[in-house]
Amino acid sequence: MTLLIEAQEVESLLSIESCLEALEASFRELADGRAVNRPRTDTFTATSDPDVFYRYKSMEGLVPGCGVMALRINSERIRWPLVDGRRRQDKFQRVYPNRYVGIVLLFSIESGELLAIMKEAYLQKMRVGGTSGLGIKYLAREDAASLGLLGSGWQAGVQLTAACAVRKIDTVKVYSPNADSRKKFADDMGRQLDLPIVPVDRPQDAAEDVDILLAATSAMQPVLEGKWIKPGMHVGSINTRREIDADTLANSDYIVVNTRDTGYAVYIAGSGEGVVPLKEKELDVRACPEIGEVISGKAKGRSSAREKTLFLCNIGLGTQFAAVAARVYQAALDKDVGRRLPPEWFLETVKK
Amino acid sequence: MTLLIEAQEVESLLSIESCLEALEASFRELADGRAVNRPRTDTFTATSDPDVFYRYKSMEGLVPGCGVMALRINSERIRWPLVDGRRRQDKFQRVYPNRYVGIVLLFSIESGELLAIMKEAYLQKMRVGGTSGLGIKYLAREDAASLGLLGSGWQAGVQLTAACAVRKIDTVKVYSPNADSRKKFADDMGRQLDLPIVPVDRPQDAAEDVDILLAATSAMQPVLEGKWIKPGMHVGSINTRREIDADTLANSDYIVVNTRDTGYAVYIAGSGEGVVPLKEKELDVRACPEIGEVISGKAKGRSSAREKTLFLCNIGLGTQFAAVAARVYQAALDKDVGRRLPPEWFLETVKK
Repeated sequence: MTLLIEAQEVESLLSIESCLEALEASFRELADGRAVNRPRTDTFTATSDPDVFYRYKSMEGLVPGCGVMALRINSERIRWPLVDGRRRQDKFQRVYPNRYVGIVLLFSIESGELLAIMKEAYLQKMRVGGTSGLGIKYLAREDAASLGLLGSGWQAGVQLTAACAVRKIDTVKVYSPNADSRKKFADDMGRQLDLPIVPVDRPQDAAEDVDILLAATSAMQPVLEGKWIKPGMHVGSINTRREIDADTLANSDYIVVNTRDTGYAVYIAGSGEGVVPLKEKELDVRACPEIGEVISGKAKGRSSAREKTLFLCNIGLGTQFAAVAARVYQAALDKDVGRRLPPEWFLETVKK
Repeated sequence: MTLLIEAQEVESLLSIESCLEALEASFRELADGRAVNRPRTDTFTATSDPDVFYRYKSMEGLVPGCGVMALRINSERIRWPLVDGRRRQDKFQRVYPNRYVGIVLLFSIESGELLAIMKEAYLQKMRVGGTSGLGIKYLAREDAASLGLLGSGWQAGVQLTAACAVRKIDTVKVYSPNADSRKKFADDMGRQLDLPIVPVDRPQDAAEDVDILLAATSAMQPVLEGKWIKPGMHVGSINTRREIDADTLANSDYIVVNTRDTGYAVYIAGSGEGVVPLKEKELDVRACPEIGEVISGKAKGRSSAREKTLFLCNIGLGTQFAAVAARVYQAALDKDVGRRLPPEWFLETVKK
């Protein structure tokens, strides 16, 4: 049986606790060499509209502890329009406005069968938020209680939820350039988490007197400045090429990354192909431990109460999708959620 | 609309002529840098059965001239049992006996949408046979009329069909180790192609006095010996790591390959990962022109009537699947074949 799991179903089936647990185990397996990741590749081509590119993106990962292999696919038209003087990334489909193909295919490593096709956006949000949460769990001070958040958009909420799942957070400040959206975020998330959340006017205000500072923005320019980082603080970023400045790296004592495998291949039709290493500003990513190594004890966690730690969720892994998608699949089975597709649709007879 | 196209439908929708035409155009685009290929990657892990591995295999290709991006996936349990003293590759699924997940996903580069999910085995056979046919078209003598075939299995028939589509073949000999199967192949294919096909007892008999010699076997040891190659002959092989001997390379004047990009990555859970370059015996594949370069005129074809040419279909390309799957999709639309799936099943809303 192959389950088709819709976006809202995925959302109803994955809690932050389950997400954190699944990711933690998968990172341990990755660090131990049991899980394997086929790094992300992007394929681009021009379209008939000179402002629009087609982008196909995929990553794959196998996590034996979850019993699955996962493939995540994005197929989308993409453009980078100027909105209010800022460059924005805009994904859309021509035929179905404001939609893109975004799915995770989940395979059983015991039977080979296609277990599920599920929508990927919530998994994407949760695997990033959950991984950021693991950074806090292993790198922030045990007594960290105050948190500053830069960003109030699509990724920001789950960052906060994940932080609250791993630390007793009692004070939150949030900054985003739009006053209405930071106010709305503070109200909504404050109610949801039963926490006082204070919207602030400037990013440096969010960074002041906090134990944890998180950037979770879609900014194309730095919003987090390294000079704000104080002793004992833990800093996290999900968009390390853009939202943090070079001082953030220079002013951190201990930097941990999601993965060192940052040389992902980009194939561009019509202009050759090449491997594009992730530009980490002044950072030599090869010298940084991975979060999986910290989790598994191969690398150290926080060394002292005054250490300034930095965790960079620098690039997505197929194993993250395998871990969270396996949880969604199991929950769908348990709760009888999802549309059952005939497995024969995807099965071939054995070749001679 | 997303079309689900079953195995028998794929077979009914793709002729060898259409296949050859599509592959030829895609190889030209690849040689010109317009099409791009994300090379094959394999991911392995052990299963609870010590004799059985799980293997996940994928390759991707974008062919602008066809308007598509394609992904080919194999997900299967695999073992290599000894049968009659010979090692055989056996693919199967535990839950659905004698089945494996084998699909091609086809995406539109103009709209981004998932156009089709189709069964892959016939596409696999046709892309290999068709590519072998292009080798003959561009490298065999124009007046080549006699053909020797080593192998009578799953791949052999389409090799012959493709050869007949590009040259006026009037004499065919076929060898395979099993007398019954070579007899049956000769009868069946002879009737189908309206050609006299003679089954022969020894591989060297199939190679004697022929203009074209093709190996299309699943043999794990060489069956084609280079000493049989005579001036003016064209030789083709689809399994270049196994079915030809080192003399085949040494005794060829001009060697052309499907692709020089033979360093594909194999990720093995539990034992690290690594790129496994295709072992081409004594061959430096980097020195060989690709068939696409011959097709596009960037590399030469046959130089003389006495030249001994060798074409190695050495590893599969995502672009081959894109080319043939695009033809199947278009024919399915034209003939109203296939099951219409709701495109919403695969569409996500735009991320904020």
